[in-house]
Amino acid sequence: MPDPVDFYFDFSSPYAYFAVTKIDELAAEFDRDVVWHAFMLGPAFKMTDNAPLIDQPVKGNYCANDWARLARFMKLPWSMPDPFPIATLAAGRAFYWIGDEDRALAKRFALACFDTYFGRGEDITAAEKVADIAESLGIDRAGLLEAVADPAVKQRLKDETQVALDAGVFGSPFFIIDGEPFWGADRLWMVKRWLKAGGW
Amino acid sequence: MPDPVDFYFDFSSPYAYFAVTKIDELAAEFDRDVVWHAFMLGPAFKMTDNAPLIDQPVKGNYCANDWARLARFMKLPWSMPDPFPIATLAAGRAFYWIGDEDRALAKRFALACFDTYFGRGEDITAAEKVADIAESLGIDRAGLLEAVADPAVKQRLKDETQVALDAGVFGSPFFIIDGEPFWGADRLWMVKRWLKAGGW
Repeated sequence: MPDPVDFYFDFSSPYAYFAVTKIDELAAEFDRDVVWHAFMLGPAFKMTDNAPLIDQPVKGNYCANDWARLARFMKLPWSMPDPFPIATLAAGRAFYWIGDEDRALAKRFALACFDTYFGRGEDITAAEKVADIAESLGIDRAGLLEAVADPAVKQRLKDETQVALDAGVFGSPFFIIDGEPFWGADRLWMVKRWLKAGGW
Repeated sequence: MPDPVDFYFDFSSPYAYFAVTKIDELAAEFDRDVVWHAFMLGPAFKMTDNAPLIDQPVKGNYCANDWARLARFMKLPWSMPDPFPIATLAAGRAFYWIGDEDRALAKRFALACFDTYFGRGEDITAAEKVADIAESLGIDRAGLLEAVADPAVKQRLKDETQVALDAGVFGSPFFIIDGEPFWGADRLWMVKRWLKAGGW
């Protein structure tokens, strides 16, 4: 089996919302597994001297319209969250804590977080909210709340973010296939062509 | 016949290079004409507090690789120009001067400018170089050199840039279809779907 596709995302990224429901199915067509990596966009924006899209004049309005338009096109629920963007530390930490035991469950948890934040427009900043989402998937609520406050788990998300930055990740969603980087939900078509052709 | 597609571009934009050869053919499938609008990205970047891609840490390297990769994919010649980016005032002014007489010729001129800059990697900043390109298409060289120094033609490019900014254009390439904005060469697939469906 060929190497897995690496998929990097921030839980507060609308364009990641449009990629999370697609990437595993797409990769599976080419016998590829997908390793999901949650990271924090904040340090990436700092590194590239960038700002959240919504805060950029003119571009922010364009993107707000684009997200709603993409959701209609993909027939995904969409509810512009407020506050947006948010620091998704609790979700990111929980993702790694769950994933260390069960990677498939961590993906389901991530999908549920994206659906809660962008599909229903509910704030997922608070650890209690993240615990609600986890609990609905049968995950130990008390264990999760303890984990997201654990210094080792906190450090884990920091380390994973640094690993992503070191790999050249500067935006979300971001895909790396056999060393080749692809940025953006708009590039899923290219990811597919690349997987099919093995590069060009 | 339905309204034309408005297509906005800067002559120094690599992603516009990947769109100029496609947009007219794509729109024609849906009986749409395309009106090309040259504008200056500099004021747009100022408005959105953005910088040229190549100057952005990490992202610049990603984009340089992405341009070469897109060129290979589209089987277009690619030669990373130096200097890059450039202020394409002469090309922009010439484009409008030619287009006032012959819009089809202005498009051929624009395609030749893009091919010279990105296909062959030759600097097109100088009016003399722009005149070479125009002359190869049978355009009056002396007339063009006079035009690009004419205050009225200079003002024309400024005005067209302001019209673009007022329409919400903040990047290149940019398409507006019946009031709906689409940004980026990555969105030609969406432009096509939108033209086909009449929106969604």
